[in-house]
Amino acid sequence: MYDIIIVGAGPAGISAAVYAMSRGKKTLLLERQAVGGIIGKVSTVTHYPAIVENETGATFAARLKAQALAAGAELVYENVQSVKLSGDVKQVVTDKGIYEGKKLILANGTTPRKLGIPGEKELAGKGMDMNAAAHGEQYRGRSVYVVGGADGAVKEAIYLSKLAAKVTIIHFEEKLGTIPEFRRKVEAAPNIEVLLNARLAAVYGEEQVEKLDIRDERDGSIRTVEDSGCGIFVYAGATPNTEMYTELELEDGYIPVNEKMETGLPGVYAAGDIRVKQVRQVATAVADGAVAAINAAMG
Amino acid sequence: MYDIIIVGAGPAGISAAVYAMSRGKKTLLLERQAVGGIIGKVSTVTHYPAIVENETGATFAARLKAQALAAGAELVYENVQSVKLSGDVKQVVTDKGIYEGKKLILANGTTPRKLGIPGEKELAGKGMDMNAAAHGEQYRGRSVYVVGGADGAVKEAIYLSKLAAKVTIIHFEEKLGTIPEFRRKVEAAPNIEVLLNARLAAVYGEEQVEKLDIRDERDGSIRTVEDSGCGIFVYAGATPNTEMYTELELEDGYIPVNEKMETGLPGVYAAGDIRVKQVRQVATAVADGAVAAINAAMG
Repeated sequence: MYDIIIVGAGPAGISAAVYAMSRGKKTLLLERQAVGGIIGKVSTVTHYPAIVENETGATFAARLKAQALAAGAELVYENVQSVKLSGDVKQVVTDKGIYEGKKLILANGTTPRKLGIPGEKELAGKGMDMNAAAHGEQYRGRSVYVVGGADGAVKEAIYLSKLAAKVTIIHFEEKLGTIPEFRRKVEAAPNIEVLLNARLAAVYGEEQVEKLDIRDERDGSIRTVEDSGCGIFVYAGATPNTEMYTELELEDGYIPVNEKMETGLPGVYAAGDIRVKQVRQVATAVADGAVAAINAAMG
Repeated sequence: MYDIIIVGAGPAGISAAVYAMSRGKKTLLLERQAVGGIIGKVSTVTHYPAIVENETGATFAARLKAQALAAGAELVYENVQSVKLSGDVKQVVTDKGIYEGKKLILANGTTPRKLGIPGEKELAGKGMDMNAAAHGEQYRGRSVYVVGGADGAVKEAIYLSKLAAKVTIIHFEEKLGTIPEFRRKVEAAPNIEVLLNARLAAVYGEEQVEKLDIRDERDGSIRTVEDSGCGIFVYAGATPNTEMYTELELEDGYIPVNEKMETGLPGVYAAGDIRVKQVRQVATAVADGAVAAINAAMG
């Protein structure tokens, strides 16, 4: 029986684990993939106060992990399949076992959205759906496309522009939905082209991407671009991982909480990107984790 | 005319500056003393996610400062003396000049509380009111006293126990008001003695502390301890630096805000320890700063 079980080891979950341990609680941290969550896979961590120089998602995630382990949290890599949130004892069923805890902190964030277009699945990892931090280097001197116009997409386009010969941002809206800092950097980069009112509609190829269809959102016309061996990086938003939390009332798929990070069910907390909130940043995720754990440890 | 003026360069103010700059805002950051605020002076930064190993207040503050400057914030060391918070143009008067801005973020935290006891002022810096990070080394092998029983006090007692021959914690309550992690470390340290129900009542000496009076809170009796050349480290809480914000309604001296960190006056935000909040940690201060700046940049 754990005092506190935390689902998800991104910044919110790690922060919760560090604070829970500091409060002397027996803490289990469940992660299905890798510590760091989405931020652990970015090319560059920006804006989080006191980051180290040239901070990458990987270096950031490594420090998060080391800190949670040093604090004594039990970190287990298992995929949560169902949960029982009501009652005094909470139950978490993973692909490998069943865990029980007095308190539960849901910090399993969001999953990047797929485009759902022809060729996406077949060419995944063969040029389609690549990761800038992991695969950027192999596109040095080549042509790449970034799908998306929000901060996450544009940040990776800027990173890729230092490696690739040409970066094309494909964004469906009339202008990029990014912060001025990134907009200025895009304008200053000689090798970034921005295609607005445009959507990636299909990708074609066998062992690599050979060509792509880009739809003009204004008139629906499709333009086919031949670009053999190009790389396509998709940052088209994310959806909250809340399917299994059927006992909770959600808002647009996100979990509403009060200022103590309590959900509608006693003993169940939510922290980070998975909760209803205005500002989704690492800086706010770690605060959520701290507040959730401190309150979970009290009750 | 600045877009955003931030008062105070602790974690909340630095975070606000970094986010304000990322939103392309002309930002002025006013600091009366040193970047980092109270956390910049601690021996050890604990629990903040992704801290580096052996993080001290000084190393942490140095990275905060470098990050704000790299982001392009204008950092000015001046002491704010008065402010005009109402109206479309906010005015900040310092000891050296007058600044005007469209938005104001109040992030000037708290000031450590003095004890108000005989000898405190006269012996300050001569053994009384020392700082563990700055002066701990000079007490290697000697006797020190830590006044206070909350996390900040106990953390420094633990740090000092690795240097000093003996550490005495003087706390007025029946037990230490600290987290289990620190309580365990105190119990494990062979050279920390905890005096409960006790208050430091006076310090005596000329060039150094020669003796101190400790009052027993249960019966009011005073015990005088001769301890020539000892060091006394005071961590007896803090009071919010809100005296000059007479236009705002305060709660126990702290500034109430909504979830966007807006105060009761349009265009005026508060972030970090200075605001009404449940959890005062670096992790929550940086979130406040991010949320305040993002909203200030929008409006």
